[in-house]
Amino acid sequence: MVAGERSERRRAEVVTGGAMKVYDISMTVRPGMQVWGNVPKKQPELVNLHNYSNAENYESRILMDAHTGTHLDAPLHMLEGGAKIETIPLTETVGNARVLDLIGVRGEIGRAELEGLALQAGEWILLKTQNSFTESFGWDFVFLREDGAHYLVERGVKGVGTDGLGIERSQPGFPTHKALLGNGIHIVEGLRLADVPAGNYFMVVAPLKLEGIEAAPARALLIGG
Amino acid sequence: MVAGERSERRRAEVVTGGAMKVYDISMTVRPGMQVWGNVPKKQPELVNLHNYSNAENYESRILMDAHTGTHLDAPLHMLEGGAKIETIPLTETVGNARVLDLIGVRGEIGRAELEGLALQAGEWILLKTQNSFTESFGWDFVFLREDGAHYLVERGVKGVGTDGLGIERSQPGFPTHKALLGNGIHIVEGLRLADVPAGNYFMVVAPLKLEGIEAAPARALLIGG
Repeated sequence: MVAGERSERRRAEVVTGGAMKVYDISMTVRPGMQVWGNVPKKQPELVNLHNYSNAENYESRILMDAHTGTHLDAPLHMLEGGAKIETIPLTETVGNARVLDLIGVRGEIGRAELEGLALQAGEWILLKTQNSFTESFGWDFVFLREDGAHYLVERGVKGVGTDGLGIERSQPGFPTHKALLGNGIHIVEGLRLADVPAGNYFMVVAPLKLEGIEAAPARALLIGG
Repeated sequence: MVAGERSERRRAEVVTGGAMKVYDISMTVRPGMQVWGNVPKKQPELVNLHNYSNAENYESRILMDAHTGTHLDAPLHMLEGGAKIETIPLTETVGNARVLDLIGVRGEIGRAELEGLALQAGEWILLKTQNSFTESFGWDFVFLREDGAHYLVERGVKGVGTDGLGIERSQPGFPTHKALLGNGIHIVEGLRLADVPAGNYFMVVAPLKLEGIEAAPARALLIGG
């Protein structure tokens, strides 16, 4: 079989796979949703521009922080002079990902919680924690401690997703973000993983195609399982 | 082979397909981009909230119309009392899609331009036209005329994507939108298809997971080819 034939066969199976299961792992964006620190000005606003009482159709404008709900961070978010969101192509956020069961962890994910999980170079890992089981922001959310971030750098993962609104808290200077973003490891925050069993999936993280800023809101999904 | 084994094999092939090619078919969202009618207030704004001159990190707020760039319309956009964006799950916008070569068409796509393309019930079709070859909005953009929309209803396609900022123009009362949205056919507008050969793909249209409004900006991609 030549390469072209194999490619054709694989593609056809992707397209027609009748048993395909799609998990939506995105947070719903709406006024009143959880936002970082429960700060009111971080709430999204959905502003009606016109509707059937004053026009022939219905249109809205959206006002939201780049870090609202599920989103992808770019290095500029935490590194002065860092790369902007348009430098991360879809090929970086589409592919193999593994959901890790960390729902037994309280508070902090460090090296000790990650060793023994056989992390692979080049894979995305998604941290399924107690954060997925609440729709409220609390300062006690489960986060990736600095030593855990350094372990991910050692292992060479491609990216890490968390079900907290942030990948870290309570660490002056943001060392977890800086270790990851400074070493080319992507960060997705605000996932919803409660309904997703641990295991391997085909992941699509699809941030808005924004240009010139430090992050982008995203829809994220897993296929498989 | 039992069903579970077949599912496992298929999933593994999706995940590991080394020849996977990802086409980003989304419009870049930035100030100065093309917007409907070239109306200045429809431009997106990316507002810096703080940066390294006044804080420890960099954060932005995004202001954009729901119909900015690549986006998914919900029925409420054109039908009074119509369904809102949260009624369209990802399973409706993830799956088989076919890019149709209509780059020879000037102006209007009607029934005559679609007959002979063997449209299949349940498939998404993406209309690749001259619109993909400009980054400016002009009132002469290629659109789907009402009779073309009725033909799509007859054929029972699942959804239609266009590389215009709108699926129609120059038709009082928006009959194309109403024929499609009134018959359960999804509409994605603002695609970029210049680099994508006609043919079959695995499509992911990933709108922001918004609630309560009539549309959502989206990232869209095709896999395969």
